[in-house]
Amino acid sequence: MMNVPNIIERIRELINDDTLDQLKEELNGYHSADLADIFVELRSDERLECFRLLDVEKAAELVEYLSPQMQVELLGDIDEEVASKIITKLPHDAAADVLGDMEEDGETYLDKLPHKFSAEVRELLTYNEDTAGGIMNPAVLTVNSDMSVLDVLNHIRIKAEKDNMELYYVYVVDKQNHLLGVVSLRKLLTSPINQKVEDIMISDIVKLHVDDYSDYVTDVFTKYQYNALPVVDLYNRLKGMITWDDVQDLVEVETTEEIYQSSGISTELVDEDEILTGNILHSVRARTPWLFITLLGEFVAVNVAHHFDSTLAALPIVAIFMPLLAGLGGNIGTQSITLMVRGFSTGQITLSSALYHIIREMFIGLCIGILFGMLVMAATWGWQHNIELGVVVGIAMAINMTMATVIGTFTPFALKALKVDPAVASGPVIATTIDVVGLAVYFTLVSTFLIKII
Amino acid sequence: MMNVPNIIERIRELINDDTLDQLKEELNGYHSADLADIFVELRSDERLECFRLLDVEKAAELVEYLSPQMQVELLGDIDEEVASKIITKLPHDAAADVLGDMEEDGETYLDKLPHKFSAEVRELLTYNEDTAGGIMNPAVLTVNSDMSVLDVLNHIRIKAEKDNMELYYVYVVDKQNHLLGVVSLRKLLTSPINQKVEDIMISDIVKLHVDDYSDYVTDVFTKYQYNALPVVDLYNRLKGMITWDDVQDLVEVETTEEIYQSSGISTELVDEDEILTGNILHSVRARTPWLFITLLGEFVAVNVAHHFDSTLAALPIVAIFMPLLAGLGGNIGTQSITLMVRGFSTGQITLSSALYHIIREMFIGLCIGILFGMLVMAATWGWQHNIELGVVVGIAMAINMTMATVIGTFTPFALKALKVDPAVASGPVIATTIDVVGLAVYFTLVSTFLIKII
Repeated sequence: MMNVPNIIERIRELINDDTLDQLKEELNGYHSADLADIFVELRSDERLECFRLLDVEKAAELVEYLSPQMQVELLGDIDEEVASKIITKLPHDAAADVLGDMEEDGETYLDKLPHKFSAEVRELLTYNEDTAGGIMNPAVLTVNSDMSVLDVLNHIRIKAEKDNMELYYVYVVDKQNHLLGVVSLRKLLTSPINQKVEDIMISDIVKLHVDDYSDYVTDVFTKYQYNALPVVDLYNRLKGMITWDDVQDLVEVETTEEIYQSSGISTELVDEDEILTGNILHSVRARTPWLFITLLGEFVAVNVAHHFDSTLAALPIVAIFMPLLAGLGGNIGTQSITLMVRGFSTGQITLSSALYHIIREMFIGLCIGILFGMLVMAATWGWQHNIELGVVVGIAMAINMTMATVIGTFTPFALKALKVDPAVASGPVIATTIDVVGLAVYFTLVSTFLIKII
Repeated sequence: MMNVPNIIERIRELINDDTLDQLKEELNGYHSADLADIFVELRSDERLECFRLLDVEKAAELVEYLSPQMQVELLGDIDEEVASKIITKLPHDAAADVLGDMEEDGETYLDKLPHKFSAEVRELLTYNEDTAGGIMNPAVLTVNSDMSVLDVLNHIRIKAEKDNMELYYVYVVDKQNHLLGVVSLRKLLTSPINQKVEDIMISDIVKLHVDDYSDYVTDVFTKYQYNALPVVDLYNRLKGMITWDDVQDLVEVETTEEIYQSSGISTELVDEDEILTGNILHSVRARTPWLFITLLGEFVAVNVAHHFDSTLAALPIVAIFMPLLAGLGGNIGTQSITLMVRGFSTGQITLSSALYHIIREMFIGLCIGILFGMLVMAATWGWQHNIELGVVVGIAMAINMTMATVIGTFTPFALKALKVDPAVASGPVIATTIDVVGLAVYFTLVSTFLIKII
């Protein structure tokens, strides 16, 4: 898209040469999304210097693309007067996010902003930021049902320009602001200009409630694929709208949480932002719980192995195959879990298909298990010149891998049926279960067949 | 959103009672996205029966929400005449996808469709389906730069209605269809009606090229957050546009691939759709390569353990702690990999921050390692009444976990620097590396300190 390192170099040259007019012109010529990529790579002093050179409009556009930390850093360090101007140019929802993140400073700014703007932002700040109310933009274009298409077009001309509104749909409300219907711009532009709005509006509206949680919001958007959805309160009064670009950010955060959870990193105890760069103790806290469960599980595995102490003493060579069995069982089991958990998340798998997937995965485990069992048998035979040992390790491998796919498929379904999130609980629990069962199978085979042969 | 099982039950009742008029009315009353959720849960004979009852418009809307397999299943089983009508109602890009998936049957249908429609669909089918050309919709509303706002509004009124066009932006082209600029509907509706298009259009256009790959397409959309982007050919001639809902589907597929790859499921050898429900041998093929790498790696681990045969023979009890060390090392290492790979993917981590993250993760590994080392020491001491064994296992645990975070952090950065995709290569390679190094550390500690003490 563009060569960021070259641009950074160019900016540093201009700063060093003190040719700030030139720098100002070049910076204001970039698309704000490109500027955001550039700003991430600048040092914080350079960042501030460049930010000061931006026009207010451009600065406001840029702020929307920046991370919360960088928004607070830049707006907190520039002149308060300019910062207020920039914040007023932001859509209400973005302004509320920025001011909410600025904490006490945010209050100070709110007092300085135009009254109507600050009142609306204050109302937004009363909603939980993980709900539709905290995500929505309250600036929505509304019309009455008895207006004609021409009236609406004239209304848009005045209103949308003045209030810097996003335009996707026009919402039809009554005098008490109850939501009655929705008209798309496309419908508006292709209908006769004297037609009444109530004749072209859709009244079976997909809508969100201010208290809906963000994961429900993303589910509804993903399912219906609208550009924007209206948000209403308990009495069906229109409070705002959520647009697809807000949802795009939410989906990215949800995906990150899903991926974190799959490797046992808790996003419930600690905020997702904290885990990568925040306080180290918070990261430790997020990562310890499932490791602790693993620890308990592995102690069971240690106990299983301990149960076969005499076998180990009689034939210490069998011990060296333990990591091989555990490693491959764990990997193929993790593959099964990953497929099931992701399948639930995309809707490709539902509870009713449990049996199909368990049997299918069992076959896959059996195929790969037999293949790998034979490889291991051949390798062990060739290496240790001990065919009996090779056969036992090979059979243990085949059983282990088959069993791992079954456990790895069954558990997510069982958790889902018990209404426990399989993404959260599956990984570490299954890994240790596979270790425990795998070792039990292996040592039973060894003590039953190998010790007797010897 | 809605109670699917109840609706399914209701539909089955209506089918059994043969009250098909009632069923027809109810089915046509659902939102097509809701219908799609219902259809997934029906048996295939019920699905076909319900599909036959839908109005053509509703059926076309529904088809867009269905999986490719189900599209082909339903359209292939109904009357050809009706299927043609439904296909003609689809946007060109969706029609091309459906007809492409129908293979030979698709050709038959193409011959029966209206000439202009089939010609456009045929052109779409010439593009690689993973490129912007294969994703785009060729039906785009274009205007000339010397038209006035009023001309454009009149043009939209005739054109958008007739050709069932999606409307986000109006694209300005010259006589040879070269892309000159773009005007948003919002700008159009808020500008004076006698203003010339060339005065309000934006000419610094973010655009895509027909040959751009889908991952580039999603990157551009994610970065700039536009609703729609124009697609041009080598000569800047406008060929179509891609809308955000097309991209939403692409992002979901990309995320699935990222998640699959993290557990060593190859999406390069086998199509992502095949892995969950397709031919079992394809699934085996997708899952075997990294398991095979794991097998080789674990054989190295077996060799390391073999090197300490005499230690194992002298003190067989040490063997039982191997799964404990491997399990926890593997888990915490996987957490580090997951954080880095996801960070690269969201852009939160760049190569320049390698040192920061390696050191940060090392500290986290050290904290958790010391904590878990002490737990393991205490547990082993209490259980085996052997303080020396407890100390050695505890120290091995602390070293193992710290080392696992360092390897788990360093490797993705190293792969990224070498231009290898860290998502693909990290998981299985690191898990076995951690096993190998962890066992070496453990056995070295045991043979150095424990054997001597005894």
